[in-house]
Parts: sequence; C-alpha cells; structure tokens
Amino acid sequence: MKSVVEQLEAKGRAAKAAAHRLAYLSTDIKNKALHNIAGDLLAGKDEILTANKKDYDAAKASGMGAALLDRLMLDENRLKSIAQDARAVAALNDPVGETFDRRTLPNGLQVSKRRVPLGVIGAIYESRPNVTVDISALCLKSGNAVILRGGKETVNSNIAIVKVIQEACQRAGMPDGCVQFIENTDRVLVNHLLKMNDVIDMIIPRGGAGLIKAVTENATMPVVSGGIGVCHTYVDKSADIDKAVAIVYNAKVQRPTVCNALDTVLVHADIAQAYLPKMAQELAKAGVEMHCDERALAILKADKSLKLVPAVDEDWGKEFLALIAAVRVVDSLDEALAYIEKYTSGHSEAILTEDNRSAMRFLDEVDAACVYANASTRFTDGGQFGLGAEVGISTQKLHARGPLGLRELTTYKWIILGSGQVRP
Amino acid sequence: MKSVVEQLEAKGRAAKAAAHRLAYLSTDIKNKALHNIAGDLLAGKDEILTANKKDYDAAKASGMGAALLDRLMLDENRLKSIAQDARAVAALNDPVGETFDRRTLPNGLQVSKRRVPLGVIGAIYESRPNVTVDISALCLKSGNAVILRGGKETVNSNIAIVKVIQEACQRAGMPDGCVQFIENTDRVLVNHLLKMNDVIDMIIPRGGAGLIKAVTENATMPVVSGGIGVCHTYVDKSADIDKAVAIVYNAKVQRPTVCNALDTVLVHADIAQAYLPKMAQELAKAGVEMHCDERALAILKADKSLKLVPAVDEDWGKEFLALIAAVRVVDSLDEALAYIEKYTSGHSEAILTEDNRSAMRFLDEVDAACVYANASTRFTDGGQFGLGAEVGISTQKLHARGPLGLRELTTYKWIILGSGQVRP
Repeated sequence: MKSVVEQLEAKGRAAKAAAHRLAYLSTDIKNKALHNIAGDLLAGKDEILTANKKDYDAAKASGMGAALLDRLMLDENRLKSIAQDARAVAALNDPVGETFDRRTLPNGLQVSKRRVPLGVIGAIYESRPNVTVDISALCLKSGNAVILRGGKETVNSNIAIVKVIQEACQRAGMPDGCVQFIENTDRVLVNHLLKMNDVIDMIIPRGGAGLIKAVTENATMPVVSGGIGVCHTYVDKSADIDKAVAIVYNAKVQRPTVCNALDTVLVHADIAQAYLPKMAQELAKAGVEMHCDERALAILKADKSLKLVPAVDEDWGKEFLALIAAVRVVDSLDEALAYIEKYTSGHSEAILTEDNRSAMRFLDEVDAACVYANASTRFTDGGQFGLGAEVGISTQKLHARGPLGLRELTTYKWIILGSGQVRP
Repeated sequence: MKSVVEQLEAKGRAAKAAAHRLAYLSTDIKNKALHNIAGDLLAGKDEILTANKKDYDAAKASGMGAALLDRLMLDENRLKSIAQDARAVAALNDPVGETFDRRTLPNGLQVSKRRVPLGVIGAIYESRPNVTVDISALCLKSGNAVILRGGKETVNSNIAIVKVIQEACQRAGMPDGCVQFIENTDRVLVNHLLKMNDVIDMIIPRGGAGLIKAVTENATMPVVSGGIGVCHTYVDKSADIDKAVAIVYNAKVQRPTVCNALDTVLVHADIAQAYLPKMAQELAKAGVEMHCDERALAILKADKSLKLVPAVDEDWGKEFLALIAAVRVVDSLDEALAYIEKYTSGHSEAILTEDNRSAMRFLDEVDAACVYANASTRFTDGGQFGLGAEVGISTQKLHARGPLGLRELTTYKWIILGSGQVRP
C-alpha cells in the first residue's frame, strides 16, 4: 500500500506547485485551456466513448440499475453538451484579481483586498463522468489546481477524459500538474486524501448523502457541500390562490429528484378550505402522493381521485426526492415559522402571500440559504441566479451560502502598499 | 457528570433561541446593551474587583508567574479601559441587514444577499478577563448569541463580569439567554461543547497554540482562529536602506510578543554589505539577538557589540515572540519567494524595495493573509486596518482571512422576491 500512498502524496505536491503558478496566470491562458478541453473532448470522442462502453458493460454485468446506468452512459450528444459546458465556463468573468474594500489610512498606507484562488481543491464524486470536466473547468477558471477522485464505476471514462483535459491544459500553457486524477479507487486512498490538509485547501464531495456525510466527518480540511434540502412552502391566508397552486405545483413537480424541490406545504387554516382542493387536484394530475395531517385529510378526503396518505411523524422534515409532498394545516404565520425553524435544513424556504408584512416577517425570521416570497424554490441554482456555472449549493453558513459560483472558489488577501510606514 | 452536561445543553438551546430573536433586533437595542454593559462594569466595580482578587490570590498561591498574574489582574483603570472598549464597539457600524449583490433577473425575480448573523458563537479562552467583555460585545453587536468558556484561573472574575453583562442586556431589551457562561471548568464539558454543532455555528479559541490546536482538532463546527504568525521581511537589492532599517526595527521591536512581529529578515546579497551592519546596530540597541546564517554572520561578526548566534535549522520558520530575529542572505527575489513559500505561516509577509516590478511580483506571488510593500508587518490588526474592533486574525483561507472584524461574524442569506414566478 505504501507506494500508492506515496504516489498520492506526489500528486498532492504537484498540484500545490501548479497552484502557485495558476494563482497569477492570465485569464486568456485559462480560457484557452477551457476551449482546448471542449475541442479535444469532441476530437477524442472515439477513445472516450470506447472507455465509457467498458464502464457501462462492466456496470451492467454487475447488476447496476437502469437509472444509474443512464447516469454513467456517454454518447456523442452528451459529450457535445459537456464540451459546451466547458466553453460556458470560459465565457464567465474571471473572479481572480478583483480588488475591493480599498481604503487609504490616515498614515498613507493603502489597504485593499485582492481576490485570489483558494489553491488546491479536492473533489470526490460518484458516477457521472461529466463532473470530471465540470469541476475541472470551474477550478481552472478560478485559478485553482484540482485533485479528482471519481467513482469506481466510471474509472475508465474518467481516465480517458482526464488525459484529454491534461493535454489540453498543457497545450494552452497551463502549469504542469494543475489537474490530478486518482486512478486507484481503493478507499484507503480516499481516507488518506482527506488527511492531506497541508496540500488541499478545500474539498467538495458531490454525490449522495452517504458520501457527503463520510467526507464531512473525516476531512481535515474545510468541506463545502450541500447535502439535503428539506424545502417548505407556506401558503399564507392572504395568498393568491391561483398563483399559489401554480408555484406549489412547479416546486414539487418540475423536477422532483433535486434538492430544491418542495417537500412540505404548510397552509394557513383560513385559506385551507379554498386552497387545498385546487392544489391537490393539480398535484394529483402529475401523480403526486400527498401525506396529509388530519386537518388537511379532512378537507381533501371526499375527493377519491387524490392519492392521499395519512402523514406519519417521519414525513415532517423529510426530503422526498420523489412525487410525494407532505401537507399540513397551520393556524398562523407564527406556527409556520416555528415549524420551519424546527424542520428546516437551511436550503430554500418560501412564503406565498399578498400581505407585505407577512412576507417581510418570513424573510427576516427564516434562517436558510435562500428565502423566497411568491416564487418557486426550484430557482435555487447558480445558473438561475445569474452566477453562471455552479459548483454546488451550500447549506452551511461560513464562507458561502446557497449557490456556489466561481467567486466562491476564491479567497482574498490583504495588499498593503506603504512608503516606509512604521507603527507608532 | 450527566446533569452538568444536561445543563450545558440547556445553555446551548437557550443561546439558540436567543439567536433567533437577536438576528433581527434593532441596532439601537444592541447599542443600548453595550452602553449598559460599559456603565454597569464601572458601577459594579467593587464586586468585580473583589472576585478578581480571589482569583489573583488563588493563582499566586498556586505559584503562577508574574507575567500571567499580571494578565489576570484587574484594577479600576483596567475596568475603565474594558468599559471603553464596549462603548467603542457600540460606535461601530452594524453589519447586519446590509443588502448586496442585488440583481433583477429577466423573469422579474429580484435576487439579493442580505447580511445576517451567524447564530451562536462559542468562545474558549484563557486567562484575561477582558476577553469576556470583548467577545461578548462583538458577538452581540453583530447579532450573535455567545457561549463563553473562560479559564479556570479567572472563573470568579468571569462570573462577576457575566452577571453584569447579562443584567445589562436584559435591561436593554435583549433576548434572554443571549450571553451564556460555562462556570464549570471541567475539561469534559469543553469536549462536549466542541461536539455541539447542532447549536454552535462557529467557535473561536483565544489563547496559546495548545488551546488552538486542541479546539481545531476536536471541534465539529467551523473554527476561526489565528494561530501562529511566522513573519518574514525581505530587503530587496533596491531597498532604501534607511527606510528598511526603520521598518525592520519597528516590525521586530515595537511589540515582539505578538503574532505580527517580525521573525526572519531575508536580505538580498547585493545590499547585504551596506544594509546588514546598520540594521544590526539598531536592533542591538533594543537588545535583539540575531540568529544569522553563515553569510550574514561573515558580514556582521567583526562588530563585537552585536548579539549574534549562528542560526540552526530550527530558527527558520520559527515564531520567536521575543527579541530574537533570524537573519539570512539570499541571492535573488526568486530565492526569497521560494524561501517564504516554504516557511510562511500565511500571516504577514513584507518586501522592502524601491523597484516597483519586484514589489508587484512579491504581492502577486506570496500567499499570505497580508502582503506588504514598504511597511511594517505590525500593522496587521483590525483596528489599524480601519475595521474597528478585532475578533482575531485568521490565517485560514475560507470565510475570512487576516483581521476579523464585525462583518466576519456574519453570513448572508439570499432573498428572492417574486410575483408568482415558476421555473420553466
């Protein structure tokens, strides 16, 4: 085992050395690398697709389910889309070098902050091979070196893709070693990687809750991860019923398998009789199963076309990631706020109301990354918010919260320009 | 033990409940609390000084050294100064509520970030009782609840001070429970505190390297700490010799026991003959012992008035915190940069040069919280940089780097105002 660990440490040192040069590389060279990657992915498609076929066949033979097989499968159209993503990152503004919070002190010292890359970013991710390109592009554009550790199921695809990325970078004049890939998928190496805080400045786990939990608990460097999104939408007594039906429908149905999809609807008792049947009929059209508290059930149960289930304790605060919604009647905004405070995962929470005072209270008091008035929580996304590409969505409070764009892959340093000043 | 842990957990819950209300409390009430604290510390001086005398006598009887005894000792003047610090925090701008990065999306959604408190901040600190007031004032002003765990040696002083703070807060209309104090100094409770990441959003260790290391390694919540500062000043071949002598003298001598004081001087070989003797004579006047490499020693050894020691390996990259400086001759800016990259602790690094290109390279390439051209590293300080009070100095890269002011005790949330938008 020792020599494999030594190889990993050598990769770490190479990434750190590359990061040192990447930090002040011109935007042009970084963009050239990204365009090279896009072009080379298409030019090298035969090799990549052959490698991917090997992964696909092995995964299928091992009994992998259809949904996961589909996630790891590449074809020419998917490669085109991945190449386009790399070009889109090239088109984003380079966050590095921005100067801000500038001030001149009474003694003449000029103090400012300058935005700089974090250094080396580690990424541990699961089956989708597009993440290899996606994370590399974002890290390189923000001036960071990256150490990639993909899933065992896509190792052949990733090896082929990383080869393309590394050659494309070299041709653009990027420093050697800026993209490192761990081919050996032994878990011991992941554990060792998580202890390399002398080399890795930040680690990003991308995958299921199990992966995120394991990385968060064992990493010695900062972890930026999203984790789960238990999203509530509260329909206030003053809500516009048609708008509220449309928003709840969108939040639940438009893409139910993602973290910003609705999980629980809270409905004010004063509007429940008028609102709930309309909402339930719409949701039922999309096949949504509603897990209702007693009061919601009493209102809805006459309609035999609905898929109703009496809610159990586990339904509250649960991320369904499916066409299921928990439904609950509350007596007041205060009750809704207290409920959300108890069950929020700090991701995205919404109020639907025509009463500005209720909206303001909700926006003030709910403690989450994204707090909405009168819109679908499905908008919580770097692309939707205008950040360009997105690294992930953070539900933690330090460093960055909500959608993480390029800027969130940077830090700053203080630059102090003097002319001989000493401290009295 | 169980009931003491339960008490601690109850304090955590009380702080969290208070934080929820503190988050949107008016600046006026927070400032009133700070002025109340300042006034009440002076009004309650007899009780506080009596408690402090008890700590002092016990510490003295236990054989505590004079320097530490001085740190824990309070008198009326020190109390006045502590009260003044609380008033100074009241005078700072309230960072909470600031709106930034506002944009209106093509679909009409108004997206912005709003600055909000972190929530609950834990503080673990050692002997100085002024930290109790200092940290409380900064946390309260930034809308955070705080859980304080002070040193065993000052427990009586802290109990008396916290009583004053809690009553002063209550009279101002602050939420109950916003300042929690752990009276029991059993280490088991600290270990338990470090696991309370469901309640505590950030923890600040203030004290020696041992405390910081223990907290960093065992905390389950984010830790913001400074740790050590190994500060280099590089005297370039084009440096102005008189300015360079004055800056190095100031960086080493003005207050040698703090983290932003100079540790190592690197001198370009072309200027070493002219510069080093002048520098050494000045430093010697203040009693500075110089640990020199062979080339520096060869230049300086004729002057028998100097305190010279041949440098050993351990001198490079050492934080001296005393009137000792390591001195080394380098052949180029490149060598200085490589040396600093190897030995930097990421705190404060300086170049002294009249050559703008050298200055720019140094500022670009050195990876530290604060990078200087032509000034003393002693300026690395929240007060000096115009942030007002300072929580500490961060040498980590995420969240905040360098001096931490009130703003660094906050996070943001995304506020999204819609009028019925759904995602297509």
